[in-house]
Amino acid sequence: MSQTSPGISKIHYGIIIIMSIVIAVDIGGTQMRAAAYTQDQLNPLKQKKIPTLATEPGGLERLIHVIEDVWPESDAVTAIGLGSPGPLDPHTGYLLAPPNNPEWHNFPLAPEIEKHFGVKTFLDNDANLAGLGEYRYGAGKGHHHVLYITVSTGIGAGVVIDDRLLQGFHGLAAELGHVIVDPDGPPCSCGFNGHLESFSSGPAIVKYVLAELDSGVKSILKREKSLNARDVADAALKGDELAIRAYQRAGEYLGIGVASFLHAFDPSIIIFGGGVSQVGGLLFDPFDASLKRRVFHPRYLEGLAITQAQLGDEAGLLGARALAEMKIGL
Amino acid sequence: MSQTSPGISKIHYGIIIIMSIVIAVDIGGTQMRAAAYTQDQLNPLKQKKIPTLATEPGGLERLIHVIEDVWPESDAVTAIGLGSPGPLDPHTGYLLAPPNNPEWHNFPLAPEIEKHFGVKTFLDNDANLAGLGEYRYGAGKGHHHVLYITVSTGIGAGVVIDDRLLQGFHGLAAELGHVIVDPDGPPCSCGFNGHLESFSSGPAIVKYVLAELDSGVKSILKREKSLNARDVADAALKGDELAIRAYQRAGEYLGIGVASFLHAFDPSIIIFGGGVSQVGGLLFDPFDASLKRRVFHPRYLEGLAITQAQLGDEAGLLGARALAEMKIGL
Repeated sequence: MSQTSPGISKIHYGIIIIMSIVIAVDIGGTQMRAAAYTQDQLNPLKQKKIPTLATEPGGLERLIHVIEDVWPESDAVTAIGLGSPGPLDPHTGYLLAPPNNPEWHNFPLAPEIEKHFGVKTFLDNDANLAGLGEYRYGAGKGHHHVLYITVSTGIGAGVVIDDRLLQGFHGLAAELGHVIVDPDGPPCSCGFNGHLESFSSGPAIVKYVLAELDSGVKSILKREKSLNARDVADAALKGDELAIRAYQRAGEYLGIGVASFLHAFDPSIIIFGGGVSQVGGLLFDPFDASLKRRVFHPRYLEGLAITQAQLGDEAGLLGARALAEMKIGL
Repeated sequence: MSQTSPGISKIHYGIIIIMSIVIAVDIGGTQMRAAAYTQDQLNPLKQKKIPTLATEPGGLERLIHVIEDVWPESDAVTAIGLGSPGPLDPHTGYLLAPPNNPEWHNFPLAPEIEKHFGVKTFLDNDANLAGLGEYRYGAGKGHHHVLYITVSTGIGAGVVIDDRLLQGFHGLAAELGHVIVDPDGPPCSCGFNGHLESFSSGPAIVKYVLAELDSGVKSILKREKSLNARDVADAALKGDELAIRAYQRAGEYLGIGVASFLHAFDPSIIIFGGGVSQVGGLLFDPFDASLKRRVFHPRYLEGLAITQAQLGDEAGLLGARALAEMKIGL
């Protein structure tokens, strides 16, 4: 591809091509990050981040400002992609009930931005977009069937099938953290029982350790309010049996869940993101053994890649970018 | 649409349009059924059925003959669609390991038919195609996100997402009877434990009754080799408590499985086919209660249709037809 003054235009075989620019915004719990991208460059033309201040009024105005801050001089913006924690409706662009943000309950976020800037605007949730970002720009490049799973405070997922993001009728598909892996299992953060998230998320690992400590199991871990999955991992690496068992259990159930996801989606790659997935063999050795024991036909594993996410903190932004690009046919 | 001599050609606004004809074959365990369809008619131009004779040699020749039998005089066949029990690879058109048919192990069925007739030929499994048939010609018409589940000797599924059949990387997606609903559950027909099929299929219902009879539970049902799910349903309708409980259990686990499928696929319609799904409230009252208790957000149920399959014995043929039509862009 010829070198150009990025984002403006380029002369290519004598034809002037206006570069398509998309703006992506990742609305996180603490930060709102915006960036403008030309089609042919991985790095943004401009980027900006500001505090989200979710509990304070004026969220829409802050979002508009941060988009203005990265608006390119050429003005050739063809689409805006927004990523936000759910629940939300990607078909209408409405936020439904974001936690800690009463101002944005049932709020037409994408329509408001589209009206303000006069540019097509698309919205989806952070996990779906991280999956879409990894598919298009990260570990999933070249794959057509991608299963992205983030294991963190919760368990979220983004699924790409035949090069298209799985969204579903209400836009609530791929909530794989809330797939039931054991009907009699412990309560999930959502209040329902036995979800994958209630076994294998960070808080689930901590909760298991606390319950075992309460029942008198010996460990170098102490019952502290601040105890987190990282502490448990550190104790496991020091050989603490309870801590090791806590990760074994999380990995085993993750394998059970993922076996079912293979039977349901049959992807060619599984990409793990999120803090808890950083602990390596502690989680993934039992995961791997459990998965292999549970997959009901060996063919699912043929040529299946299992890998870590590549985009890190950029996944949300690049996912929102990918959403905007794909929706306008780029 | 104007009346025409079906399958040949029609004069429409002065332009001669050659009618596209597809041939569909449903290769069942006992019968092979073939039919030729024009694009604008629900009923076939021609149809034929012959015994499958799966355990006898000459299967490919029989398949070729039955296709020849429905071959239209106009010769304007643009595609052939084949449906068969799995496992198979829809991407290559190979049968992998059909039960009771050693001749067709790892057999290039679609390539052989394509070579013989010089017409593009496509293959997929019976459950996927029944789902695709219902989506295009049956209960799912007008829906874009369809979950078809057949509850019978096994539990199979066909999933349409955004108007496209879910096939997956190896063509093994949507094996929803083998999703794990309870890791400690009973063995499935496939040998693995705790699958939906091991709780809610016909044989699973019978197995539960037999185990309860063995443990001394009173019932009008007797321990007989020929006992089937229909007998259990009859006993339940006469008020037999064990029989009622057997269907309650099957329905409860079906609800648990389907709740997870909603979280994963978020369809706008669930279509039930298969013999066991004919029993009505016996299965679907406990299913309904279980589903409502297990869906983790009420929005999944908004506007969700739950209904019976419409195509009956035609589902396989119309699914194979739909596959052929969709693959060539009709």
